[in-house]
Order: sequence, then C-alpha cells, then structure tokens
Amino acid sequence: MKGKLYLIPTTLGDTGISEVIPRKVIDIINDLDYFIVENIRTARRYNRKVSETKNINDITFFELNKHTKPEDVASFLQPCFSGKSIGIISEAGNPGIADPGALAVNLAHKKNIDVVPLVGPSSILMALISSGMNGQNFAFNGYLPVKDNERIKKIQYLERKSKSENQSQIFMETPFRNTKMLNAVLQSCKNTTLLCIAADISLPTEFIKTKTIAEWKKQKPELNKRPAIFIIQA
Amino acid sequence: MKGKLYLIPTTLGDTGISEVIPRKVIDIINDLDYFIVENIRTARRYNRKVSETKNINDITFFELNKHTKPEDVASFLQPCFSGKSIGIISEAGNPGIADPGALAVNLAHKKNIDVVPLVGPSSILMALISSGMNGQNFAFNGYLPVKDNERIKKIQYLERKSKSENQSQIFMETPFRNTKMLNAVLQSCKNTTLLCIAADISLPTEFIKTKTIAEWKKQKPELNKRPAIFIIQA
Repeated sequence: MKGKLYLIPTTLGDTGISEVIPRKVIDIINDLDYFIVENIRTARRYNRKVSETKNINDITFFELNKHTKPEDVASFLQPCFSGKSIGIISEAGNPGIADPGALAVNLAHKKNIDVVPLVGPSSILMALISSGMNGQNFAFNGYLPVKDNERIKKIQYLERKSKSENQSQIFMETPFRNTKMLNAVLQSCKNTTLLCIAADISLPTEFIKTKTIAEWKKQKPELNKRPAIFIIQA
Repeated sequence: MKGKLYLIPTTLGDTGISEVIPRKVIDIINDLDYFIVENIRTARRYNRKVSETKNINDITFFELNKHTKPEDVASFLQPCFSGKSIGIISEAGNPGIADPGALAVNLAHKKNIDVVPLVGPSSILMALISSGMNGQNFAFNGYLPVKDNERIKKIQYLERKSKSENQSQIFMETPFRNTKMLNAVLQSCKNTTLLCIAADISLPTEFIKTKTIAEWKKQKPELNKRPAIFIIQA
C-alpha cells in the first residue's frame, strides 16, 4: 500500500489549536513522520504546538519554497512508495493556495499517490462567507501588482469585472503594504462599490466589515501589519 | 452588547463531527439558542448530532431558503439586539457559498452586527487545494446551465478563460446530474486540458484525481449521486 499525501492546515496566527483544527487532523499530524514544509522552523514549532509528546527529532522535513529546484520535489514523495504517508504544511492556513505546495500535489497525482485534504482555517473562504457578497460566483486573484499605477489599473479592472460578470473579486497584500493597498482601493473604486475588509481572521483582534467605498472613506481602519483579505463587488 | 452572527459549518455527509469540526465550533453551537437555517429538520438533526445533552426544544429556528421573503430576514436578526447571538447553518459545508445565507450576512453588516466565520469543511476549497492546479488565481462558477447546448458553451468559455487568464475554473452540479456533466466536459474540452474530479470529499469514499481529458476518456469514474466538484485548467 502506497502512503498518502495529506494537506495539513495550520492556524492563521496565535490561536489555540482546538479553535480552528478538528480532532482528527490533530491525530493525523501526530501520526506522520514526514512533512513537506515551506519553512522548517515554523513547521517544527507547529508540530510541537499540536503535540507535546511527539519527538520532533524523529520527523523528516523536506523544504519546498521558492528556492527549491522543481526536480527535487519528486524525491520528497519517495516515502509514499514504502507505505509512509507525508503531510504538506504551508506557513499559514491551507497548503496549495498562496504557496508552492501545489507543485508537490501536482506530482502526487502524476505518481498516483492519493491526495487527502484536511479541514482547517482558510482566510480567503472565511472572508468570502463573512462578506455577504456573491458566494455563487467569485474569483481569487492572489497578490496585486506592487507598482502604484499597475495596482490601480488592476483594481479598476477587477471592479469592472465584478460588475460585468457579477463576480466577487478577492485579493490580498503582504501585511506591511495593507495601508497602501487600502488607499489605492479607496482612490480607484466608485463610491457605490462594496468593499469587504477582513483582517486578523480567527484571531482575538478579528475585524470583518463590508461597507461602500464612500463609507470607508469616512473612517479607515488601521490595517498595518495585520494579515487581511480584500473583496470588492461593484 | 449586541449578539453576533456566527457562520456555522456542517459536515459534508455522514462523517463524525470531530473529523471536520474544531472543538471550539462545537462549543459555540452548544451555546447558541437561535439559528437561521436552510432546512429546519436537517438543522435540528445536526444540533442533535453535535450535542447529546442540548435540549432541541429550547432552540428557535428561522428558515431562510428560496421561499423566504427578503423582508422577513431582518426579523431573524432581532435576537442580536437583545444580546443573543445567532448561528447560521446551511445544508452542507459553509453557509454563504451556494445557499441563500449571504442575505442574512449582508443585512448583519448593514445593522452593524459582528459576523464571525467558523472553521469547517468547504468542498470547493478542499477540491482546489487537492487538485494541484493554480491556487493563486481561481474562480468558482457555481452551477452551470442545465440545457445541453448552453452547458457546453459555458464549459468551453471556462476552458478558454482558464487559459487566457491562467485561472483554475471550479464548478459543480447536483449529484444526480454528475454523469451528464462529466460527459459534457469530456466532450467539450481539449484532450490536453486538465480536469480535477473531487467526489465525496471528507467521506470514506472520497475520490480526488487530476488527469488530462484524454486520460479521463479512457476510464470514467462513477459519479452518480456523489456530491462532486469539477475543476478545469487548460
């Protein structure tokens, strides 16, 4: 029997494990000896947080990030062929969304290794359902361009698209650029367009509000260094 | 203090609660006395499954589905103004995705009631991360048209879009029409296009595979009456 590739969720910040991770997922993490991870230090810390009894030294970590050579990824899946299952962990939330994990998943399908998704917090999905916006038709656009004029063009393109396709448009930014991003959105969009700001999802400081651009202009939240998801609908 | 609107996840089928629902979410469900639900019978059964000690007769259920008048939804949120929190539950997975729950969430924002998303299984997200496809840029398109020629047109439109925008295209079908849907996809798409079929997610019969259309044509899975998510990438 081949081992499986488990997609392991992590917390979105400093919350208790049992707040956002189901019991079964904790048990699976405890049973695994092999992990493909974005960052070994974070993954080790997460394993320690999930289980106080597990011996971290018995775990083999393979690092998969932007520095990893694609041809090395195949070797990470080797344990599956001797019946050992592997967990894949990203820095926050679900692997495969805004990280290089999809590479390993892709390869698992080619090698006929079962891929098993596990339940955990997804900031994108949690923001969307909390926004009250169209959940039947939505798009996630990842990170927008960093350059001012390109960013504004992209925001306006997404605003038009949300209207013409009746599709909620989700995007994000690295936390230290959130204030810039918010200003760009307020500056670029029509006053009647709806904007949902979802920051610190699942954390004690969680902030989730949907308002029109005109309303947001009157009172801007402080988003600096808080992980946030933005959703617009025109 | 106003009550909150909790977005309560449910299982995607007949699995144990602790497999897919975190401990904290179970505790919150136990504490709530008011629920906005798609179907009272299902919601009552779910409450009973989550807690053997809770008295179901003490719970007030408001039904929100396609038969509900939009003007009645405001009254469902009334308990929040006397400090009582409300849970919103859909038939499967997260509320607000492919159900009328977004109406209540939308109204909560207007009435300045805090909306709190809770962690649970999302077939869309779990299918996407398991597909190995582009997780930085994806769109969920809900249900496609039922009429043969319109469906084929839509599938081909999504295939072109997945190529031109480098965006994974997710869609679904009611389980008894899955075989028809699969045939339509195999018939409409190019042989080199990737198709992920994710059926019975989180259930013991879970089936998740990504293959090219050419490969799927050689061996078609039985999908009839199994809840499934389809994802294409050209």
